[in-house]
Amino acid sequence: MSTLLNFPQIVDAAISPADIKRMSTEELTRLARTLRQDLIQSVSKTGGHLASNLGIVEITLALHKVFDSPKDKLVWDVGHQIYIHKMVTGRKHRFGSLRQYKGLSGFVTPVESEHDSFLAGHSSTSISLAVGMAIARDHRNAKNKVVAVIGDGGLTGGMALEAINHLGHIQKDVIIVLNDNEMSISENLGGFSQYMKRIKETWFYKDIKQKLDLIEDELDEVPVEPIIRDLILTVKKEAKSRIETPGIVFEKLGINYCGPIDGHDVGAVVAAFEMVKHRSGPQLVHVITQKGKGYAPAEADSIKYHGISASQQEKVEPSVVAPPAQAKPKTYSQVFTEALIDIAAINDDIVAITPATAEGSGLVQFAKVYPDRFFDVAICEQHAVTMAAGLAKEGVLPVVSIYSTFLQRAMDQVIHDVGILNLPVIFGIDRGGLVEDGETHQGVFDISHMRSVPNMRVYAPANAKELRDLLYTLSVERSGPAAIRFPRDKAVRSEDAVGFEKINPNEWQIVRQGNGPVLFAYGAMVETCMQAMPLLLEKGLDPILVNARSCKPLDTVTMDRFLFGGGKIVTLEEGYISGGFGSAVLEYAAAARSNRPGRKQAEIACIGIRDHFVEHGARNILLDINGLSPQKVAEFVAEFAKA
Amino acid sequence: MSTLLNFPQIVDAAISPADIKRMSTEELTRLARTLRQDLIQSVSKTGGHLASNLGIVEITLALHKVFDSPKDKLVWDVGHQIYIHKMVTGRKHRFGSLRQYKGLSGFVTPVESEHDSFLAGHSSTSISLAVGMAIARDHRNAKNKVVAVIGDGGLTGGMALEAINHLGHIQKDVIIVLNDNEMSISENLGGFSQYMKRIKETWFYKDIKQKLDLIEDELDEVPVEPIIRDLILTVKKEAKSRIETPGIVFEKLGINYCGPIDGHDVGAVVAAFEMVKHRSGPQLVHVITQKGKGYAPAEADSIKYHGISASQQEKVEPSVVAPPAQAKPKTYSQVFTEALIDIAAINDDIVAITPATAEGSGLVQFAKVYPDRFFDVAICEQHAVTMAAGLAKEGVLPVVSIYSTFLQRAMDQVIHDVGILNLPVIFGIDRGGLVEDGETHQGVFDISHMRSVPNMRVYAPANAKELRDLLYTLSVERSGPAAIRFPRDKAVRSEDAVGFEKINPNEWQIVRQGNGPVLFAYGAMVETCMQAMPLLLEKGLDPILVNARSCKPLDTVTMDRFLFGGGKIVTLEEGYISGGFGSAVLEYAAAARSNRPGRKQAEIACIGIRDHFVEHGARNILLDINGLSPQKVAEFVAEFAKA
Repeated sequence: MSTLLNFPQIVDAAISPADIKRMSTEELTRLARTLRQDLIQSVSKTGGHLASNLGIVEITLALHKVFDSPKDKLVWDVGHQIYIHKMVTGRKHRFGSLRQYKGLSGFVTPVESEHDSFLAGHSSTSISLAVGMAIARDHRNAKNKVVAVIGDGGLTGGMALEAINHLGHIQKDVIIVLNDNEMSISENLGGFSQYMKRIKETWFYKDIKQKLDLIEDELDEVPVEPIIRDLILTVKKEAKSRIETPGIVFEKLGINYCGPIDGHDVGAVVAAFEMVKHRSGPQLVHVITQKGKGYAPAEADSIKYHGISASQQEKVEPSVVAPPAQAKPKTYSQVFTEALIDIAAINDDIVAITPATAEGSGLVQFAKVYPDRFFDVAICEQHAVTMAAGLAKEGVLPVVSIYSTFLQRAMDQVIHDVGILNLPVIFGIDRGGLVEDGETHQGVFDISHMRSVPNMRVYAPANAKELRDLLYTLSVERSGPAAIRFPRDKAVRSEDAVGFEKINPNEWQIVRQGNGPVLFAYGAMVETCMQAMPLLLEKGLDPILVNARSCKPLDTVTMDRFLFGGGKIVTLEEGYISGGFGSAVLEYAAAARSNRPGRKQAEIACIGIRDHFVEHGARNILLDINGLSPQKVAEFVAEFAKA
Repeated sequence: MSTLLNFPQIVDAAISPADIKRMSTEELTRLARTLRQDLIQSVSKTGGHLASNLGIVEITLALHKVFDSPKDKLVWDVGHQIYIHKMVTGRKHRFGSLRQYKGLSGFVTPVESEHDSFLAGHSSTSISLAVGMAIARDHRNAKNKVVAVIGDGGLTGGMALEAINHLGHIQKDVIIVLNDNEMSISENLGGFSQYMKRIKETWFYKDIKQKLDLIEDELDEVPVEPIIRDLILTVKKEAKSRIETPGIVFEKLGINYCGPIDGHDVGAVVAAFEMVKHRSGPQLVHVITQKGKGYAPAEADSIKYHGISASQQEKVEPSVVAPPAQAKPKTYSQVFTEALIDIAAINDDIVAITPATAEGSGLVQFAKVYPDRFFDVAICEQHAVTMAAGLAKEGVLPVVSIYSTFLQRAMDQVIHDVGILNLPVIFGIDRGGLVEDGETHQGVFDISHMRSVPNMRVYAPANAKELRDLLYTLSVERSGPAAIRFPRDKAVRSEDAVGFEKINPNEWQIVRQGNGPVLFAYGAMVETCMQAMPLLLEKGLDPILVNARSCKPLDTVTMDRFLFGGGKIVTLEEGYISGGFGSAVLEYAAAARSNRPGRKQAEIACIGIRDHFVEHGARNILLDINGLSPQKVAEFVAEFAKA
């Protein structure tokens, strides 16, 4: 830990790209060291992505040294690697507010700075964006450079490969900086990564090229006919020129390769950028970095330090590795993984699939118990879902653990490959609802998108035990595709999360009887309503609370009971109102009314997220400003009930 | 055309894979010729994909010769290349019903035959499916082979590249047959394709490897010290082993490469399949074919013969190339492209993007006029949309022409890259609504998915002129993302489609005044209502017809006028009811009611497609059985109005 003590605290909060341009290599090297310390101290307080940002310090400085942002466009992939970029573009003084509500975003975002040329939260977008920006530049006859900065993890995403394929064809002037730290969020995955790894391990081309040179040396020492000597030398030269170079895969695709470069040697990185800066056509600079560089605990375990939540870090001395807190209530992710492990023990058919979110989803635990039944397919949501369809077709029961926001990447696969054939694939939709990370990561589309898919069933548990029972029941039924969505939050009553019970998942549960209004609460909103109950009673109401755990199919028996009883119904969901659970209730009510003319229907109001992108900030703040806290729910329900 | 006359008509309608297994190479060659003739005759009558199926005859026969379907799994990518496969798996006698309602599907589909191991309509899914099936096989300790058959076009799709990357990592026994006909739907695109092309053009590795062998021959003729001779030979061997082989890109990714093979030499294809059949690990067999092989008109212009509609072909003698009919009414696709060409003439900022559907969308015409402002990015919907975001961010106005069904592949990009930054990208959603191709190609999700995206506006024109005016207005406003969806149909009043008018796109139009009920018709349903009008008048009704051209934003002024007038409202759309336009109306009505307590609201009923996958068949049949024909609309409205 001694490295920490040696960092002088000298970086001016107002440091800018112009300052960097004036610095020598030595000064940049010193600056890198100091920025690392500042970063560790900041992130220790605020939480955030540590290891990835420690790895990219020198690349960031070299980019600002060589290129002229904002005129030149720096397009960052998965924008959580931009803390250093933010620090050196005039935002260092705001780092205390990182990821806080109304504070500095944890991602790259143009609303914050002209140096953030685009927004990025999801992976693998940067090359497509850069191609678009390069076409636009040429369309406008402008002269700026366009630089995409992508990690080896991002390169596994199909869209990045689509973009490379297209760029190789149209040959626009785009520079791709490949920040190769041998790791996406969890593990370096895929044939491509292994290829990159071999480049680094062996520099193999050197070896064979050197041996070919030996031929020439040896020939000098023996008598050989000149004509034969010439032939041999010609062949040697041709062979050498055609022998694999480290970047041959890129070169074959039309991308000029430069590297590998030591990404922590700022002088070497600057030199590489200078070299490709004025070349025409697509350029790829392959830079090798180490995640967590400069902070011993993060170097040793960069997965744990990928993302640090503020609450976790507040208790951690920056120089001390704290074990994860043990006695905390379990999260829904943990409950899901534990249930899956337990169910897999009694059902050999189950395999688990994750697109590079094994850590965040807790599925690493499953991988430890069942390494042969666990598939982390890298940042490949599309492949994950269609692969699951192939598995299901052949009699295996795949459980796809996927974040709600990343499920957006695979909707066609859900429809086309899983839905049409009505295949038993179980989706565990993690982080369904609001998260602190901001616009790009909110899990707000899944309810409406998933329920629009024929054959799909869409569940949300109200508590830990129900999550276990739902997963167990679906694994036993195996009767087509189904999804269980749960928020990034601690699980309600996780102490009950033991054993399984086969339930009728389509049957809603009446949690509280009363005189009305009727609350149809979906998933986590059941608990919110429970917390709102004292406030509602105080206001003189006597609500009926229904755990509407199935958004699709709707429990029309329970619905009818309240729908045709007159009175008022409020639907509640943590997702967009547009097309969501409440919308499903309205659709049913409209259809039911035309089937039963003359019968008076209850009035229905919908609580959910209105049509806007939700910013970053603590989950409880976001829930409140979006009308989903117990207080706001109580206010809305009371007003609606009395109107 | 003489080739056509020489084909004997001998193929038994009941020919099966077992018959093929018994055949010699000569017999298979003759069978290939005969099947080609049968295919040409069948498709001439029914319509369908001709060129791609003519290209894959020998591959199909070789697959059934070498592998043991259905035990071995043949996984076809973009299942429209499976006519020959269907013919030799007991479905030849049903070819007269190809693509007819309740007839033979134009795609591969397991409900039809055990030999169709999976369903495919969209591209680039086969390798992911094969990986899933191989994992399932190994999980069950089974021994069957899994073979994915993918075209060079399919290989541009990001998901296929994700799957190759993953397969290279996990090293499962999967055989990939790359059917390389140098063409996706329109043109061979991308760095990858160019690489494949160079393999074929030069067979370059042979040259250098032969020269290296010469070294050895020459050394035999001169006196050289044994130690030096050994060194030279060792180096030669090593150099030879490391020199680029044609499939080096695949090999670097962990996929063993075999090829290139002449795909019309059935013996060579059988030999290649036999060779890789028992190898372990991932294998790729690179087979070169010619689209349209054996049918001169299709060889010469395989794009035109990619898909032939029955109506077009009925007038065509199989041996005669018919020019496209000229005097037909224009389709919406044509109107859209013509409008885009005209608008681009007065707006230099416009560029057009298509993901490999330049022909189908009519955008080839745009490409001819503005080759520098046209980008066919191959089968890369994700890249297309995110590239458009990059363009829009840098001041260019991209118009993305995309089929509704393929937009499903890019929803995350619409949300994450276009939506959040509120970028002016215009989406021309073609084939929005029902199409004859069946479940995989129905354009039924776009309304609900697109309207769920904040900042997005979602329009549908009622006729050709409105399509022009909408496109023109959006191109002038440039105020964020917007979509215009239109069906695969002839345009209503295409004779009016000249000039432009700037309109208020968010304002609904009252097309017909009356006493009620009120019809809120979206897009093509306006014309359907017009056609239903005589029937409704006959039934004693006097409907008000509203052209609700904007699904988002809703025209709440017009809505309020009818919503709070009591009476009855029917919403009509050609898309899923779930989350669609009608659902948006219901959501607004619910919200409006809670804002105006006590005021009586109109009853609302929704006409749209119910929650199921819609099969294949003629568009007018599908519209009718889904309640969207004028007759069915009139019946529903009359019943609802009188209830």
